[in-house]
Amino acid sequence: MGARPERAGHMTRTVPVGLTIGDPAGIGPELAVAAWRALRHDATRVFVLFTDPRALPTGAPFRLIDTPSEAQAAWADAIPVMPVTPLAAPVVTGQPNPANAPTVIDSIARAVLSARDGAIGAVVTNPISKYVLRQNGFSHPGHTEFLAELCDVSGAEVMMLASPLLRVVPVTIHVSVRQALDLLTEDEIVRVATTTDAALQRDFGLSSPRLAIAGLNPHAGENGLMGDEEARTIRPAIARLRAAGIDASDPMPPDTMFTPSARAKYDAAICMYHDQALIPIKTIDMENGVNVTLGLPIIRTSPDHGTAFDIAGTGTADASSLLAALRMATDMTFFRSTKP
Amino acid sequence: MGARPERAGHMTRTVPVGLTIGDPAGIGPELAVAAWRALRHDATRVFVLFTDPRALPTGAPFRLIDTPSEAQAAWADAIPVMPVTPLAAPVVTGQPNPANAPTVIDSIARAVLSARDGAIGAVVTNPISKYVLRQNGFSHPGHTEFLAELCDVSGAEVMMLASPLLRVVPVTIHVSVRQALDLLTEDEIVRVATTTDAALQRDFGLSSPRLAIAGLNPHAGENGLMGDEEARTIRPAIARLRAAGIDASDPMPPDTMFTPSARAKYDAAICMYHDQALIPIKTIDMENGVNVTLGLPIIRTSPDHGTAFDIAGTGTADASSLLAALRMATDMTFFRSTKP
Repeated sequence: MGARPERAGHMTRTVPVGLTIGDPAGIGPELAVAAWRALRHDATRVFVLFTDPRALPTGAPFRLIDTPSEAQAAWADAIPVMPVTPLAAPVVTGQPNPANAPTVIDSIARAVLSARDGAIGAVVTNPISKYVLRQNGFSHPGHTEFLAELCDVSGAEVMMLASPLLRVVPVTIHVSVRQALDLLTEDEIVRVATTTDAALQRDFGLSSPRLAIAGLNPHAGENGLMGDEEARTIRPAIARLRAAGIDASDPMPPDTMFTPSARAKYDAAICMYHDQALIPIKTIDMENGVNVTLGLPIIRTSPDHGTAFDIAGTGTADASSLLAALRMATDMTFFRSTKP
Repeated sequence: MGARPERAGHMTRTVPVGLTIGDPAGIGPELAVAAWRALRHDATRVFVLFTDPRALPTGAPFRLIDTPSEAQAAWADAIPVMPVTPLAAPVVTGQPNPANAPTVIDSIARAVLSARDGAIGAVVTNPISKYVLRQNGFSHPGHTEFLAELCDVSGAEVMMLASPLLRVVPVTIHVSVRQALDLLTEDEIVRVATTTDAALQRDFGLSSPRLAIAGLNPHAGENGLMGDEEARTIRPAIARLRAAGIDASDPMPPDTMFTPSARAKYDAAICMYHDQALIPIKTIDMENGVNVTLGLPIIRTSPDHGTAFDIAGTGTADASSLLAALRMATDMTFFRSTKP
């Protein structure tokens, strides 16, 4: 897995990362404050929050800024806030209100615009509720698809889950197991693995990424005894990846490829379905998993949890995953900015 | 997970466990010697090896015995050996010989007979190669199926993988993912979970076992958004289990049910397919996983590795899994013998 970057001497040209507010009735606002408190004395981890400041918990120190370049000066004393479309209704923590959807959506849109302009280095997104947003005009299938649209690359997005112990990239995602079998194609494996390889080089500081390609079936099919997708779909994809110069493994038996010794031999695992990817990373590192969207022109990470309306405002929400997402976004910004 | 039994004062009535030789050209013989060396000073962990003693590595101390009851007296000084059909050909380590199949098969048959007679408390099996045995008349689908036949309960067998951190029981096993979807039925889930519940009570010392029932699909289907097997197959099975007094969970999202805090809330996870069960246990505890066959009238465990012909005789084989299998078999023998 990638080493931590050396930062000394480079900091003058690092831009802050941007953080969206997410659903203001969820745990996003309180986690943003908690993350700022944890990072405010670290000038290398500055973020800008895109929000109407009235979404913040009462008493949280903030400073309205006009451009992200002003964030650094404010950082130690207050959360730097870039204003967005004002809230239409007061925030009632735990009770989402579709009337505030324009604020939620504008936070995302402005953060993406800033990232595309280079004013921020990455976008870190707090969780939204697409069910709430849809009651007020949001017509996109989900958060990530909306980001891809804003970046004019719909369909290019690839989901990575990354922790310090493991990176996994599922080829098929939020579909039933039966549908995953139908959607698993040679082309999709090639697309996802190629995007992962490029991202590991550009944004993770790895000059020669090693990809572990999971089999689909038990024992990777055991020479066709248990399924032929390895021979029919996965091996042809691997041949194309190798022809393109990508370091891709043979189809690996899924049950033994996530042990510590196996993980040491690759930089990311390309997985054939949702739980093949998510069971191992959540089992070994539930707290530090970060969602990274590859395939966009911008860097985007997000914490691996939802809006959690049920615990919002109770002070029990855990900022670990948002902190991990912010740290990973800063690291990725650094790697991309120093890429020769 | 189950506590270790208190043994003091109970030992006089404990019978030894039996160990089969497995393929004599594989790592079974050297692991048997290594396990004996590790356990020989522990009078509570006596095993009897069913073998032609010429299968043992040169110089390994053994004592031929007539009944397992003589094992205890020999234990500290030599491996107690119950003789079986003699080898037909000299053993060449690393080079399996179908001519020796009768020895391999008789070792299993005699161990099972001894266990059914109560002369040994459990059968621990070293790995065989069914491909080698099939060249000399072995016509059973596999090792476990052969044991079920010997016990006159073909089709009742259930596979558990157990470590100190997790117990998993797959409902479907060595089939492709596509076939697993077709084989997953309400009846099979009920059968496997019922067998697991009974075994946890009888052989694992758990008076009120808690079963976690995995969903099949991502997020356990998310109310039908990603697959309907949870509603159509798994929930009806759970209803039947509960009606029978079994503590069975709702279908759990597969990716979050194996975290340490989730595992603390159940005694075994009933899984819908091979890798859903084997990915988490091998990822967190590759070395200590033990195969336990439930649903037989006898106790049977085995190490979670194969014959390893490629490293046999090199001294590199790791006895951890066999030791774990022997320890688990002894514990299970104890629990069953003290069951009111």
